[in-house]
Amino acid sequence: LPFGRAYLLLSAFMKIAIVGSGAVGCYYGARLQRAGHDVRFLMRGDLSTVLRDGLQVRVADGDFHLPQVSAFATTAEIGPVDLVVNAMKTTANGALEALVPPLLGPDTAILTLQNGLGSEDEHARLFGPERVLGGLCFVCINRVAPGIIQNTALGSVGLGEFQRPAGPRTHLIAEAFRGAGVKCEVTDDLALMRWKKLCWNVPFNGLSIAAGGITTDRIVGHDGLRKLARDLIQEVIEAAAKLGHTIPGAFGDLQIERTYPMGPYKPSSLIDYLEGREVEVEAIWGEPLRQAQAAGAAVPRLEALAVLLRSLTSRAAEAKVQTAAPGGPA
Amino acid sequence: LPFGRAYLLLSAFMKIAIVGSGAVGCYYGARLQRAGHDVRFLMRGDLSTVLRDGLQVRVADGDFHLPQVSAFATTAEIGPVDLVVNAMKTTANGALEALVPPLLGPDTAILTLQNGLGSEDEHARLFGPERVLGGLCFVCINRVAPGIIQNTALGSVGLGEFQRPAGPRTHLIAEAFRGAGVKCEVTDDLALMRWKKLCWNVPFNGLSIAAGGITTDRIVGHDGLRKLARDLIQEVIEAAAKLGHTIPGAFGDLQIERTYPMGPYKPSSLIDYLEGREVEVEAIWGEPLRQAQAAGAAVPRLEALAVLLRSLTSRAAEAKVQTAAPGGPA
Repeated sequence: LPFGRAYLLLSAFMKIAIVGSGAVGCYYGARLQRAGHDVRFLMRGDLSTVLRDGLQVRVADGDFHLPQVSAFATTAEIGPVDLVVNAMKTTANGALEALVPPLLGPDTAILTLQNGLGSEDEHARLFGPERVLGGLCFVCINRVAPGIIQNTALGSVGLGEFQRPAGPRTHLIAEAFRGAGVKCEVTDDLALMRWKKLCWNVPFNGLSIAAGGITTDRIVGHDGLRKLARDLIQEVIEAAAKLGHTIPGAFGDLQIERTYPMGPYKPSSLIDYLEGREVEVEAIWGEPLRQAQAAGAAVPRLEALAVLLRSLTSRAAEAKVQTAAPGGPA
Repeated sequence: LPFGRAYLLLSAFMKIAIVGSGAVGCYYGARLQRAGHDVRFLMRGDLSTVLRDGLQVRVADGDFHLPQVSAFATTAEIGPVDLVVNAMKTTANGALEALVPPLLGPDTAILTLQNGLGSEDEHARLFGPERVLGGLCFVCINRVAPGIIQNTALGSVGLGEFQRPAGPRTHLIAEAFRGAGVKCEVTDDLALMRWKKLCWNVPFNGLSIAAGGITTDRIVGHDGLRKLARDLIQEVIEAAAKLGHTIPGAFGDLQIERTYPMGPYKPSSLIDYLEGREVEVEAIWGEPLRQAQAAGAAVPRLEALAVLLRSLTSRAAEAKVQTAAPGGPA
């Protein structure tokens, strides 16, 4: 296993399990497989289609097709790997404890690509902190049909160790991503990177839902919403500061500025909400709120937004149940 | 005219113009007419039905029917009266400057029953502060069909002068309401009474919309929403205090407590929102926010709520335009 033995072997081909083969998992998994790694996908809904037709990836640096993909319905069939990549939604994390153990050898690393805060902590608690790395995907990837993935912006991945600076393992995995054509930045402060990403996700994912299902151009184009977005960013910055992560105010301004050229963009949470899928409320708003309040930061707007999003998404879930089960109790 | 002459004539029958003959205007107007006052209704949509069939009132202390009602399409036909009652929605106040002058004699009083803050100021600016009184309706009245009004809780009216203590005129009008079977309290501090009413309307009308179209039992029944409601009340209380209106904290707690027995109640703003009518966002949230901020009160939750409600209601208005004009520009 490469992490236990030869850190210098930067071109090592790894055995990688992709847990959660939605758009993000399939996209990075497909690129890593094309680059020569032995990638095994844990897959549910699209399994038979992908086993028959493989994976198609549509992406600006060149569409490609993998006719043969190793996809499985259980992690027992996959067995121990060098690297587990968790690309499930955080709302599915209740399944981790059962899913992951068959994939673990003594030196297996676990990289969570999940959104928001708290994912590494959860993996560390379940599988030991030494295994855990986190990655942040600055990208827009959609599954357009079973086995067909579209990347509409090449983007990048930020990679770091859980509560440790980057080490040889971190750089080895980063090189694997780079070798697969993915821009990858290594950080010594993963938590800071996560808080910085929240500076955009908290206001824009949140307000796009809470203000009535609007694209981000309407947030920055509306005086009140733009100010509320900036005030939310400031609360995130001040909460991060209380937790020891310094984010300059100019970074907050930049989050507003960089949203203008995005045009009528739909954040992933809004797409989930509008399509009736679970929204990652606890990862993106709930856990930052808990950490902020535990650190004594004043976050009234973040709290209000989290509360409203919890209510809105549970309303949406109820509506879905009612639609799905019209014969149920009235 | 009674206000100019004989304040002691408490049983005086007044000539009253009801401007805005929706549910509230028709209800109080019908009661005042039944008690002997000369009531003239300014009416639009329901005018022909009411001229033909009169007004029906369904109310716990006895349903009644007025077969003959003086209803008009213009205030010029009504002419000068002793008392103008404005029961329009605040969103229609742009019409006041044209509507009201034909109703004014030298001693005509104007009583606005509108929601929120700012209504008396607007009337004072347009027609002189000395004419203006304000009333708050603690009641639930609906128009169930043209000319048919339903009161589902007898309720009460709070009455006061604009920026003055109550005087003989105030008590005369209060007696008229009482003589018409309406519980009526006179206050020397109308602004305080309005801020106290906001302690309920700001959180419950607002969150019922912003949290996804929910009844008030779901606000007090949800830990996060109940806390947010109480936090909003505290912001209202502290803003009122900065403006010189003292509301005890216990009054804030009471607003939460008294909401439990209301059960699955839909605040009027939620009904407006769900039925595609204009929501009085500026009166209930916008003007209190402006006054709070001008007084230097910290009202982050009120600001966030006002901003979200502005966005949500303008989204609803857009949707209505699109539904109403499917042939319009895409």
